Amino acid sequence: MNEFEFIARLREQASARKHSTRIVKGIGDDASTIREAANRDLIVTTDLLVEGVDFHRQATPPRLLGHKALAVSLSDIAAMGARPYWSFLSFGMPRDAWSGSFKDEFISGYFALADQFGVTLAGGDVSETKEGVVVDSIVLGEVESGAAVLRSGARVGDQIFVTGNLGGAAAGLKLIELGARVLMESEPGAIAIGPVVEDGQSKRTDDEAIQALLLRQLRPEPRVGWGIVLGEERLATSMIDLSDGLSSDLHHLCEESNVGAIIDAASLPLNDNVKQLCGRRALDPLALALHGGEDFELLFTVAPENVSRLPKRVDGVAISPIGEITELRDVQLKEKNRLWQLEPGGFEHFAGTGSHSAE
Amino acid sequence: MNEFEFIARLREQASARKHSTRIVKGIGDDASTIREAANRDLIVTTDLLVEGVDFHRQATPPRLLGHKALAVSLSDIAAMGARPYWSFLSFGMPRDAWSGSFKDEFISGYFALADQFGVTLAGGDVSETKEGVVVDSIVLGEVESGAAVLRSGARVGDQIFVTGNLGGAAAGLKLIELGARVLMESEPGAIAIGPVVEDGQSKRTDDEAIQALLLRQLRPEPRVGWGIVLGEERLATSMIDLSDGLSSDLHHLCEESNVGAIIDAASLPLNDNVKQLCGRRALDPLALALHGGEDFELLFTVAPENVSRLPKRVDGVAISPIGEITELRDVQLKEKNRLWQLEPGGFEHFAGTGSHSAE
Repeated sequence: MNEFEFIARLREQASARKHSTRIVKGIGDDASTIREAANRDLIVTTDLLVEGVDFHRQATPPRLLGHKALAVSLSDIAAMGARPYWSFLSFGMPRDAWSGSFKDEFISGYFALADQFGVTLAGGDVSETKEGVVVDSIVLGEVESGAAVLRSGARVGDQIFVTGNLGGAAAGLKLIELGARVLMESEPGAIAIGPVVEDGQSKRTDDEAIQALLLRQLRPEPRVGWGIVLGEERLATSMIDLSDGLSSDLHHLCEESNVGAIIDAASLPLNDNVKQLCGRRALDPLALALHGGEDFELLFTVAPENVSRLPKRVDGVAISPIGEITELRDVQLKEKNRLWQLEPGGFEHFAGTGSHSAE
Repeated sequence: MNEFEFIARLREQASARKHSTRIVKGIGDDASTIREAANRDLIVTTDLLVEGVDFHRQATPPRLLGHKALAVSLSDIAAMGARPYWSFLSFGMPRDAWSGSFKDEFISGYFALADQFGVTLAGGDVSETKEGVVVDSIVLGEVESGAAVLRSGARVGDQIFVTGNLGGAAAGLKLIELGARVLMESEPGAIAIGPVVEDGQSKRTDDEAIQALLLRQLRPEPRVGWGIVLGEERLATSMIDLSDGLSSDLHHLCEESNVGAIIDAASLPLNDNVKQLCGRRALDPLALALHGGEDFELLFTVAPENVSRLPKRVDGVAISPIGEITELRDVQLKEKNRLWQLEPGGFEHFAGTGSHSAE
């Protein structure tokens, strides 16, 4: 039994014994939705980060780990079209991390991101561990009643969009595994180079491209602004954040919506730094864009009549149309006039294959 | 810097940058309180349980671990005078626990307690760990606006009460450390012997007393009913649950309320099984009652004019008056006409000393 099967069974059991009629959506989406008042729903998400599995301490500056712990949960709130307000942090550390500066730097990275989006740390728990750091990140947000954007709302004919660009975070992970390390200046401002470099001109050196990809993995930017706009303007019919990878997450969305999808390979917004480095470092930009995890971009669908209402950019981040929802319950990839079946090939599976699992 | 100092610093930093005016009470109580609607506050608590620190897998049947994970959070909700509604579970397991029956038994113990109090599992996260089980248990509850019972509401002259009895959970931990193990029958009903044996006649054998104490440690009963009554009837001026131990938790309550307390040793409801076994197994009932952790009883204060309105029992559990809130900002213990200074000597510190740290 894998993680997805276990969650599916939990979902079944929890749903069979549903004691609360105020749960609008429980297990099985980016976050859970609870009816708070007549006009407002509460959105809750939790994300467990485990050392050695979800991150490697020697490759992750503690400040960036604090950032990422909050970022992944903010991304879930965004994927519900909600506005984040409060956060909770359960934090386990071995004795050696207690005594050093680890926890202070972690917290400083966490608070810097919380401040950026006006999120207040409202509680949590702290424990010692025998080995390894573990963080459970919890964020609460709100939407107007019924406005939460679920995975299950995609309809045939809806256009599929994705924010930002794809494949960078997985390339960053690959570079970490090859031994690359992020160079951090001591002052806090120094780490905020992500978006500038990403959208910058192509004059950057390979070293700069590598640093940008490492930050793409270690310092993801949750698309909070896009989430709020898509939710409050009721523009998206369905949404999910890209944590497992486009091919896996699109499958999740299609399954929940009982639809299929066709994606145009040429329209995928490949990460510029991956393109710059490809060939020289066995990075396949298309494979990384399709199957690489942790980009934390938003994948969403829009009814054809609403496409013209979409803003061009939110917080400087653009979107790309990448395909369309179909009746045929399959996910297909169009590449150079050929049609491939696109199998889920998320984060866990892509490593080492080097090519996308189209067949 | 210890855990309490770290939390104090987090509290300071979070409070300095409070972005949300809807936080009624953030870090620093049993749970956090958020204004949900004009007439309703949301109560949120998280509890991190780490293998090797908070529990030992070889001494803890997974079904009881599932029970305890939820029980400790329900106890926090009760200590706020709130009614629990929804829960979330972040769950990390090493590969060997994934493949066996561990997770199914854990979940079955968790759901059995959730069903008992009508709590719905609404979401969470699942991850693999490299080593050791880790559980973050999150529960959400509600109170009428302003009815949350904080640690900070105790006033001079208030009477101090405690539910149930004291010292059993710490004695159970000591027995586990000495090698005692809980005997579980295979059918689910077989483990529900806690309250029956505890309140039963003294004809039980030492083996039965040992089993009851092991369950007191491994299968705590959160005082959900008492929490709801004390909160909804507005009977308690302050409240905390006994997780660190009476001496520590009473200090926490007094510090938050800016008061002191005097406790009468003769009035403490010592656990019957501890009394039965004392002497033969180096268990000091009074030391365990004062400093032993994890009884998960409720410690609360009541204004003198409301004492007569207190019910005798809720869900079969009685309460005991154990002392009074004083102006002198000290916690004192009256024992046989002598007055001792009662220092915090919670869970972590009592082990191995064998006597209470009165001086």
